[in-house]
Amino acid sequence: MKYETISITQSVGSLTITFNRLEKQNSINAIFLTELNEVLDQAEQDATCRLVILEGQQGVFCTGMDFTEIARQESEKDREATESFSPSHYMETLKRLTLIPKIIISKVDGRVVAGGVGLVAASDIVMATPRSQFSLSEALWGLLPCSVIPYLIRRVGYQPAYQMTLTTLPISAQEAYRIHLVDELTETLDDSIRRLKPRLLRLEESTIGQMKQYFRKMWLITDAIEEQAISEFSELLSQPKVRDNIRNFVEYGQFPWESQKQ
Amino acid sequence: MKYETISITQSVGSLTITFNRLEKQNSINAIFLTELNEVLDQAEQDATCRLVILEGQQGVFCTGMDFTEIARQESEKDREATESFSPSHYMETLKRLTLIPKIIISKVDGRVVAGGVGLVAASDIVMATPRSQFSLSEALWGLLPCSVIPYLIRRVGYQPAYQMTLTTLPISAQEAYRIHLVDELTETLDDSIRRLKPRLLRLEESTIGQMKQYFRKMWLITDAIEEQAISEFSELLSQPKVRDNIRNFVEYGQFPWESQKQ
Amino acid sequence: MKYETISITQSVGSLTITFNRLEKQNSINAIFLTELNEVLDQAEQDATCRLVILEGQQGVFCTGMDFTEIARQESEKDREATESFSPSHYMETLKRLTLIPKIIISKVDGRVVAGGVGLVAASDIVMATPRSQFSLSEALWGLLPCSVIPYLIRRVGYQPAYQMTLTTLPISAQEAYRIHLVDELTETLDDSIRRLKPRLLRLEESTIGQMKQYFRKMWLITDAIEEQAISEFSELLSQPKVRDNIRNFVEYGQFPWESQKQ
Repeated sequence: MKYETISITQSVGSLTITFNRLEKQNSINAIFLTELNEVLDQAEQDATCRLVILEGQQGVFCTGMDFTEIARQESEKDREATESFSPSHYMETLKRLTLIPKIIISKVDGRVVAGGVGLVAASDIVMATPRSQFSLSEALWGLLPCSVIPYLIRRVGYQPAYQMTLTTLPISAQEAYRIHLVDELTETLDDSIRRLKPRLLRLEESTIGQMKQYFRKMWLITDAIEEQAISEFSELLSQPKVRDNIRNFVEYGQFPWESQKQ
Repeated sequence: MKYETISITQSVGSLTITFNRLEKQNSINAIFLTELNEVLDQAEQDATCRLVILEGQQGVFCTGMDFTEIARQESEKDREATESFSPSHYMETLKRLTLIPKIIISKVDGRVVAGGVGLVAASDIVMATPRSQFSLSEALWGLLPCSVIPYLIRRVGYQPAYQMTLTTLPISAQEAYRIHLVDELTETLDDSIRRLKPRLLRLEESTIGQMKQYFRKMWLITDAIEEQAISEFSELLSQPKVRDNIRNFVEYGQFPWESQKQ
Repeated sequence: MKYETISITQSVGSLTITFNRLEKQNSINAIFLTELNEVLDQAEQDATCRLVILEGQQGVFCTGMDFTEIARQESEKDREATESFSPSHYMETLKRLTLIPKIIISKVDGRVVAGGVGLVAASDIVMATPRSQFSLSEALWGLLPCSVIPYLIRRVGYQPAYQMTLTTLPISAQEAYRIHLVDELTETLDDSIRRLKPRLLRLEESTIGQMKQYFRKMWLITDAIEEQAISEFSELLSQPKVRDNIRNFVEYGQFPWESQKQ
């Protein structure tokens, strides 16, 4: 099977998904979400697969929602078209990562921005190289990382999640490790996975699934909270001010705070 | 405008509130809460103001509820008088700090005790010098930091908040940074704020407000929990044993555990 | 009073419970839970007692549920017999540790496994030597640490609790300190307790009780969550696959992943 935005590598017990939209900074568009979910389907059908590994390329893990696609959506009708980035499809994908009976490992070497932080936060295990960095830039555009926040709070606690959202500044891999956004900081990602893999392969698929279901019940995130995240993000994204901010950036390379000065 | 317990400094985009009750160790009384809220009103009316900075003086940030005022309240009627320290006014002030569409920065250089820790916990950003220290001494008096606890748990997690309450021991600025009570540890508070300010000024006031509203929905604190905090604290404060403890300290400088030994 | 699985030492203001089932790696069986609760009864009746200290022996703190006892339970009827390990009795004991108006200190020097981690997580204060280590091995057997998880999440946050459950790997005392499973890392446990004790003895018994009640209200754990933990664990424990795993280990020393290979 051939994909447009990702590529796949299989080995014993694991499947690696390499994000492959470098020309768009590995940002998330509708096709990316569809293809990612197709590969998760494939992993679910393979009883021997225990691990699903997510990785970027050339210093870019994932930079969140594709702004160029958003800028092209002129009307409400465009936004509802199935080929557009959909906040609910993104949120469902995060939820699926946290419930699928496979161990999701984010293997980070480089930049993780906005919605990319959500993929990392929803992963079971996060490994990162020291050069990696993580940022939530949404507020600069008048947006909020609505869908990322519940999973980020779950992973790092309230205050570190709030700080990242408020300051919009990137945090280093070391800081990400300190707050538990990264579980292992390593120069050698493949070696770290190789060492952990035999241990993880001892778990039954059913045990992994039960564990993920059980932990969900032990925390704050409910279907209602996820729906709230979707509707709040959609609401923010439909504001004329926010759409102008995004369009001015995509078309003229102008940041919101620059236009304010004029 | 002239205040009795605080003083105000304005600069572009920010307003600094300096606690000015050094003769009472910058403790919190009814006037302090009223004046603090008046300045927050003023900040809300100024659309150019993004940051509200809280600071102490001469090695004292804030030492919590003013015991001398509590000791003077002989009757239930005294306690209900509007000029007394009111647990509900304190709790409402903490809540307001977490919802007002301004970025609240606590700039700590010195001692933070009891209700002072609540002001810090409810701040959006906390910067502190290495000589700062933080303690919850309430339990020594037969009290509990009821209003502080929900916001402290939100900021530092359950166990560190519980430890501070139980041991009543001060923690160092380094430890406060480790548990996320302090977001930045710095010798040069003003430089740190100067570096962060341009980034924070890029946020719209409406975005700050929406962010604070949204994060509240993503956590455990509800109006019901705040009401419970107020009623539980008022209940504890009305116990004869606790009132004796406070009166003996204010009048004779005697600590509860000293009188127990007699 | 003479106990079979523990021994008791009393001193001014405190009572030490030493786990004394070294021939079974200080694992938890029905008698252990009964005796532990009897000593907690005794502590409750002693108004001068403020601290209850839990400790292991010879490098073993506690290794969780006794597998040999489980392996002997052939039928549903056996499992309901009062002399067997009962998931609900274990959960009630954890809850009791978190609500009893005494300060529970776990003094750890060595291995803590599975249900032993629950005793630690439910303690008010945890002190450990650098050679201590902590692991949740349940998932290797097709089980989950259902009763441990809510108290572990409360103490260390969601992600560290999830990591320990998923990887099943032991974490070092240093890592346990980093995530707040251990409150003080020390080579000299007795000195650390001696230093802290006078401060803790200043608290009234009623204040300790009110504090523990109040903190329970400020967090996610409810009676419903505890009942869910009991029923989910009992369900997992009754699965034929899990019982085979345990029996093969007790009778032939064979691990589940070894039998899978055959």
